[in-house]
Amino acid sequence: MWDSLVQHESIESILHDKGLSQIGDNLVNFLYSLAKSSVLETASGEKVRDKVLAKAIRNSSLYPYVGRRTDAGRAADSYEAIIAWLWMKDQLDAKWAVHFLAERLSITKTTNRKQEGAIAAEAFQALIEEVKDRLP
Amino acid sequence: MWDSLVQHESIESILHDKGLSQIGDNLVNFLYSLAKSSVLETASGEKVRDKVLAKAIRNSSLYPYVGRRTDAGRAADSYEAIIAWLWMKDQLDAKWAVHFLAERLSITKTTNRKQEGAIAAEAFQALIEEVKDRLP
Repeated sequence: MWDSLVQHESIESILHDKGLSQIGDNLVNFLYSLAKSSVLETASGEKVRDKVLAKAIRNSSLYPYVGRRTDAGRAADSYEAIIAWLWMKDQLDAKWAVHFLAERLSITKTTNRKQEGAIAAEAFQALIEEVKDRLP
Repeated sequence: MWDSLVQHESIESILHDKGLSQIGDNLVNFLYSLAKSSVLETASGEKVRDKVLAKAIRNSSLYPYVGRRTDAGRAADSYEAIIAWLWMKDQLDAKWAVHFLAERLSITKTTNRKQEGAIAAEAFQALIEEVKDRLP
């Protein structure tokens, strides 16, 4: 159905696909909303900040593809494009990903925004490490 | 994993679950982004307007649950909560839903915003009709 949108033959070309990053933005927010809702046992919608995803990808072994000079917005876009590409290529199951994130999200209702961001960045970093071998 | 979040025994109680509607907001935007991207063969992220989802649910057989006096924001919330609940209960497959919407999205790159909204509302109406029997 969307073969033409995911015809990338290198990681670099996925990372720079702005359209995929927009799709991935919706997907990442959805996955995180569900993971957080599951952990806190209260349904809510969340928007993952660029800073969180930027940290996740910069601390991962994909760092060479992102680089220190890339701003947080573009680093987050790269993360989102990867997640979109993997899901669209049937290489990432959404329910599995929610479970994976939720297991690593040691937060409570009193965790503050900054702490939550740090914990979320680690969970997203673990996720990208887990799936990176499925990239071209 | 999220059993406690989807323990609704009536349609009404799903429709009024604000947390589910926030989760569904991310999911609906993700599904629509993929459907539109597939049709136009250009990846992009979309935000579905409340007006579109409100129209979809008001024109559907779920109308009695929403009512004429409900404002567009709350009608859209109801739509989103239903989609989230169905997905979380394994009653709605995301790829199937994208395909279903894409098949009904007769748009091109020159379709204007208003026309696209009307076509999208019909596609979302057809989707809710198709899955409504899976609700409690």
